[in-house]
Amino acid sequence: MLNTQASLSKTRKQIESIAITNNIALSEDDSAVIIIDQTKIPNALEYKKISDLESAYEAIKKLEVRGAPAIGIFAGYTMYVLALKNRDLSYEDFYQAFESDKEYLNSSRPTAVNLSWALNRMEKVVTDNKEKGVEEILSLLKEEALKIHNEDIEMCLKICEYGLSLLKDGDGVLTHCNAGPLATSYGTAQGPFLLAKARGMNIKVFADETRPLLQGARLTSFELSRAGVDVTLICDNMASIVMKNGWINACFVGCDRIAANGDVANKIGTSGVAILAKHYGIPVYSLGPTSTIDMNCPDGDHIKIELRDPDEIKEMWYERPMAPKEVKCYNPSFDVTDHELLSGIVTEKGIVYPPFDINLKKLFDEDH
Amino acid sequence: MLNTQASLSKTRKQIESIAITNNIALSEDDSAVIIIDQTKIPNALEYKKISDLESAYEAIKKLEVRGAPAIGIFAGYTMYVLALKNRDLSYEDFYQAFESDKEYLNSSRPTAVNLSWALNRMEKVVTDNKEKGVEEILSLLKEEALKIHNEDIEMCLKICEYGLSLLKDGDGVLTHCNAGPLATSYGTAQGPFLLAKARGMNIKVFADETRPLLQGARLTSFELSRAGVDVTLICDNMASIVMKNGWINACFVGCDRIAANGDVANKIGTSGVAILAKHYGIPVYSLGPTSTIDMNCPDGDHIKIELRDPDEIKEMWYERPMAPKEVKCYNPSFDVTDHELLSGIVTEKGIVYPPFDINLKKLFDEDH
Repeated sequence: MLNTQASLSKTRKQIESIAITNNIALSEDDSAVIIIDQTKIPNALEYKKISDLESAYEAIKKLEVRGAPAIGIFAGYTMYVLALKNRDLSYEDFYQAFESDKEYLNSSRPTAVNLSWALNRMEKVVTDNKEKGVEEILSLLKEEALKIHNEDIEMCLKICEYGLSLLKDGDGVLTHCNAGPLATSYGTAQGPFLLAKARGMNIKVFADETRPLLQGARLTSFELSRAGVDVTLICDNMASIVMKNGWINACFVGCDRIAANGDVANKIGTSGVAILAKHYGIPVYSLGPTSTIDMNCPDGDHIKIELRDPDEIKEMWYERPMAPKEVKCYNPSFDVTDHELLSGIVTEKGIVYPPFDINLKKLFDEDH
Repeated sequence: MLNTQASLSKTRKQIESIAITNNIALSEDDSAVIIIDQTKIPNALEYKKISDLESAYEAIKKLEVRGAPAIGIFAGYTMYVLALKNRDLSYEDFYQAFESDKEYLNSSRPTAVNLSWALNRMEKVVTDNKEKGVEEILSLLKEEALKIHNEDIEMCLKICEYGLSLLKDGDGVLTHCNAGPLATSYGTAQGPFLLAKARGMNIKVFADETRPLLQGARLTSFELSRAGVDVTLICDNMASIVMKNGWINACFVGCDRIAANGDVANKIGTSGVAILAKHYGIPVYSLGPTSTIDMNCPDGDHIKIELRDPDEIKEMWYERPMAPKEVKCYNPSFDVTDHELLSGIVTEKGIVYPPFDINLKKLFDEDH
């Protein structure tokens, strides 16, 4: 019953009833790709028409479109829109223009695997159908772009269903970074929260702000609070206290790459969340498409970690507020570290070692 | 040999040779308290003269002076400077003015225990010595203010020595928040790093930025990098990866209150650091004066955690850059979560459970 086409269509309508899911779309006359400018979120929800190569390049480079699947979908539509402008050219000139556009667009974010993956799919349509002529190729390009989008939608809807099957009414869930409908068509790691809300379930989500780029504050808390999900924004270092408070029944995180042994590369901080969860006895689930599973990569040690600009930590480029004004926050000033986690307490009277209850007492008794 | 007055005096000179330790001082003519305005750090090192009640109140309220011990030292000197203005009054009028100043100053930050503690010590000098007359009381007030300061210095120097005894040349140490000479006269949790540097040892410090107020980025990385300590600034959620990289031999954290069983209340995020350290087999030390040990508090569950304004998370009030321009940062974009920490991987083809190496393979085999 789960995941038949009929049931997925129902799942889709339910998510659409509460969430923004149209973050990338082809305009009605096929002249432009319409995107939500993600750099304006959470301070404004602005749609933007992209109809030329330079704007498309900038949209990816400036993170107006971000999230691996979203970039792939955007690249598919963009190549079709750009190709339409060359419909009067001979196949050779059409192909040359296509290649030039493709290469330029691909240079906008070299590490985005989905970008080159989508561009290559579109290119294959052009090279495989040379004999059919430019007009026929154009309609096949549109078909392929829609297919890339629809495949992503189907993948997301299935993951939303599988993810939700792990939750029960009233659960608290901690999540990290953003893998909602802005980054993927209907959401992966955060999709189940939207589906739960649409079905009248009460899931309490705690969203890590996710330094340095604050995807949790700017995007996740925006998407979820706008959809009416009960979401509380916390700083990354507050994950331990919310788990200790007994508020978390599961952690849902995304994945950028999964090794053959199950090691998961995801946004910085994910491994810390998982270690805390293990300490508190809370299950951790990674949600993402099978396309991120790399069976040729034996384990996490073989995954190269990208190092980014220090200015992301020292200087911040986003507008204030960095989170929706209406979103709840939990902001405890201190937390308590269990004495079993400590090796020693260093005071001006000396270093106190475990057992602390006995040795702290001795420290004061020795005064007399 | 450790901690005799002669050896402490040497310890003090060594720390002074590289670090800013004069963050609070009485002016030469006793007319003002001179402070470093901590709100200007790391973008400027500005000294400010405080000679009237209103400026003193604002200095505490606006966090120009912050750090529990620093506030206590500042309050002692301030009460003396203000009392000097009333030297021509009768004892009764002098006492009344003293009480009025004291109460107003105490209201600047009601939760700061060291503030009321220092104010009460100064008050006791006035009430205990009524018969000696105002002139004599003034010189006793100066003596008491200097004593408060000197006691803090001695405590810090001893903690620096005890802390350093736990480290060896070449060690990497993770630290959280700020407990250096800006917050305490010579530093507690971060003091040993300064002492190590002064003695030619090479300690590699990793400083958590410490959201939401960024004390690690703004203050710790400023104090340490200025003193020539090898310090690398990281976001709080990067603590796990630097430990996994094998770069950390110990964690040094401060303490705001220690229960009789050794549970330590400290800046939010400290418990998370300690859990990660336990996972990676790294020792954790809490450094602070015995005055923070509360033997009447049986355990951490009896410590009430202060909840603060959500705008600290959503809006930020500090100037950019939030860290010294010259400080090193480590900014990995992703980290790897070990498969042993995961309960399941949720894909569009279903939920994969451990053992992942076998079950991920099955997922793809089933396609055929």
